[in-house]
Amino acid sequence: MSHFRLSSFGTRYAGDTGISELMSDISSPPADPAQPLCMLGGGNPAIIPELSEAWAEATRATLEDPGFRRLVGAYDSHIGPEGFRDALAERFSSDYGWPISRRNVGLVNGSQLAVFYLVNMFSGMFPDGSRKRILLPLAPEYVGYADQGLDPDCFRSQRPTIEMLGTHSFKYRVDFSALRTDESTGALLVSRPTNPSGNVVTDAEVLHLAAMAREAGVPLILDNAYGLPFPGILFAEATPIWNEDIILCMSLSKIGLPALRTGIVIAREDVIDALAATNAIVSLATGSVGPAVAERLLRSGELLRLSREVVQPCYRAKSLRAQQIIAEALGELPWALHASEGAIFLWLWLRDLPVPTRELYRRLKARNVLVLPGEHFFFGLEEDWPHARECLRLNYAGDEALFARGVGILAEELRALYG
Amino acid sequence: MSHFRLSSFGTRYAGDTGISELMSDISSPPADPAQPLCMLGGGNPAIIPELSEAWAEATRATLEDPGFRRLVGAYDSHIGPEGFRDALAERFSSDYGWPISRRNVGLVNGSQLAVFYLVNMFSGMFPDGSRKRILLPLAPEYVGYADQGLDPDCFRSQRPTIEMLGTHSFKYRVDFSALRTDESTGALLVSRPTNPSGNVVTDAEVLHLAAMAREAGVPLILDNAYGLPFPGILFAEATPIWNEDIILCMSLSKIGLPALRTGIVIAREDVIDALAATNAIVSLATGSVGPAVAERLLRSGELLRLSREVVQPCYRAKSLRAQQIIAEALGELPWALHASEGAIFLWLWLRDLPVPTRELYRRLKARNVLVLPGEHFFFGLEEDWPHARECLRLNYAGDEALFARGVGILAEELRALYG
Repeated sequence: MSHFRLSSFGTRYAGDTGISELMSDISSPPADPAQPLCMLGGGNPAIIPELSEAWAEATRATLEDPGFRRLVGAYDSHIGPEGFRDALAERFSSDYGWPISRRNVGLVNGSQLAVFYLVNMFSGMFPDGSRKRILLPLAPEYVGYADQGLDPDCFRSQRPTIEMLGTHSFKYRVDFSALRTDESTGALLVSRPTNPSGNVVTDAEVLHLAAMAREAGVPLILDNAYGLPFPGILFAEATPIWNEDIILCMSLSKIGLPALRTGIVIAREDVIDALAATNAIVSLATGSVGPAVAERLLRSGELLRLSREVVQPCYRAKSLRAQQIIAEALGELPWALHASEGAIFLWLWLRDLPVPTRELYRRLKARNVLVLPGEHFFFGLEEDWPHARECLRLNYAGDEALFARGVGILAEELRALYG
Repeated sequence: MSHFRLSSFGTRYAGDTGISELMSDISSPPADPAQPLCMLGGGNPAIIPELSEAWAEATRATLEDPGFRRLVGAYDSHIGPEGFRDALAERFSSDYGWPISRRNVGLVNGSQLAVFYLVNMFSGMFPDGSRKRILLPLAPEYVGYADQGLDPDCFRSQRPTIEMLGTHSFKYRVDFSALRTDESTGALLVSRPTNPSGNVVTDAEVLHLAAMAREAGVPLILDNAYGLPFPGILFAEATPIWNEDIILCMSLSKIGLPALRTGIVIAREDVIDALAATNAIVSLATGSVGPAVAERLLRSGELLRLSREVVQPCYRAKSLRAQQIIAEALGELPWALHASEGAIFLWLWLRDLPVPTRELYRRLKARNVLVLPGEHFFFGLEEDWPHARECLRLNYAGDEALFARGVGILAEELRALYG
């Protein structure tokens, strides 16, 4: 059977990409089906029964609302239902003093799709014939951005400085001494907390980046999928920050609702209007079930209470245990963990590893341990950086015993490699 | 406040497009708030209480399933949950003898998004440097396709022959004497039933188009959003058709579930694999609530029973009443309706109308009557066709009294225009 010929778009997006490798790992059978699979590779959040119950309860209540039941049969606005947008704007205006209304809030079917729109609105060819790129102030960044640009070379990223916090602990800092915007900069983009490193760009760093963006006349896109105030998977001192230079992306996925695909964008009205028009063409309308259920939990205060009292402590405890497991298993090997300031991953640096982490990934996969090799996260760097081949992303949100088993196997492989 | 500069992609998608006009019409306040608004312009389906109840009930049952409740907290596959894909493949294999399995079925967040992917997988620049277009065998076609191409000139469409079925009735036929594929054809695309005309391309026409596609080595994309076996808004003799040359798109929106954004694609495995990889990059994952609820109704037989016994009769009756209303109101004016063979629109041809329907649309909008002017639906035609300025799309799915009021105002405007 011959394949249909695909366009350049189709060829590239259907090809092998970091994100497709990640998704295939999640759905492929393990190398040895007789042994347990240690899934430290995907991006699935923890299953928290209290969260599942809260969502099920709110969904039940929403379905019993006759007004809502009527609405399920109608398309919603192409930028999301007004109820949730109002509730969010009211809450954030009152809690943070942000001067926003519903018109500053847009909803699309998942925050991944929101970033797809934004990356392509601010990079690639421009009407004046110029070509612009998205500047990532701090590599490593989320692998899911890497292939989103219709222009395949749409990212430029900047390596950070590495601050050692101890023998086995470090933190990335934005290297402002090297970071430059120029005519070819279409926007800045940073995830906070950062997937994969668990870094939380400090308040001072955010304000500095927003000022740089303002000066360049471009937006700073802040991906807050793990951040404040929901889901609140953030363990460092940090403040939610928004101003007119910032496009803030949020998600309901890590507060327990990935199945309803609700991405949130907070930005200037002209940005929301542009997103709305684009979303109408690409997706027609935004699903309204997720926002309706979330509105109920937001207005009652439950969404923020659950973030603060359930989600944050759960991940903080999981992260601490995972760090202990790694410390005990790797002992005096030359390893260091990035400070676990947020998100659901630990970022392990293996200094002077004799093989690239891509090779380590393959060896681990053959032993039923799935991780993500660091190479995927350094797209857009203009120069070679050996550090990019010395890091692994480990998802700590899953079962603790399986995490420990996986790290034990990792330790064996590392002992063999370091010799 | 200055706007951020947008890329060429952003400028085009955020600009004024047919679909953004349509969506704005839906959400804007009426011209005269003191008078009732006659919304004959949008694409909203009818509110059918029996459908809403069935979905609410199935959703409730789904939420009570502990296995499902656990799953809501996890990302699903990037091409949709296996349960619904299995159920659909089993049902269609058994009912129609199609040789398909789960691997031939892909789910994305809405059928609009599915067509966005497909249009761009099969048009624009190709790796060999060629440029290809999507061939629409029969204009008028769905306005929602018009701006989906990343290549803004990605459609070529063919005007049909017009067969008069009576003084006030006509039907479009694919003009096979003029329709040609060539090296620049990347795919064929037709909606069946057709939005806007309510035409149902016959079985013979579909097989002829599929054979042309096969000969050209390209797919025939059939958009079955209104068709068989669900939602079943189809009143003509027609058979569901699929083979390896066909990419069949379906939707849960018109069977009452637009709020859960579930688009379905049935195609060769290599096409589904390409869609899956693309969807992972653009959208990360497909929502799983819609498919889980739909699987329950599909396996129980309710989905097909509701389509056959509730949805189809409801729309057939609504269409007939709407046709009577038009016949009575327009009387001996020079009008004709396309045969109402399916979909939720009547397509009104106003012969030798003294003004373009864009102007008629504006006059009606000023009187609180929203319709869609025909011009939007003839994108991709290479030559001027006066017929394109003589047609209106009227949504008949809404309230009958408001439909009658709107048509009455239309009749007044037409009497003034025809003089």
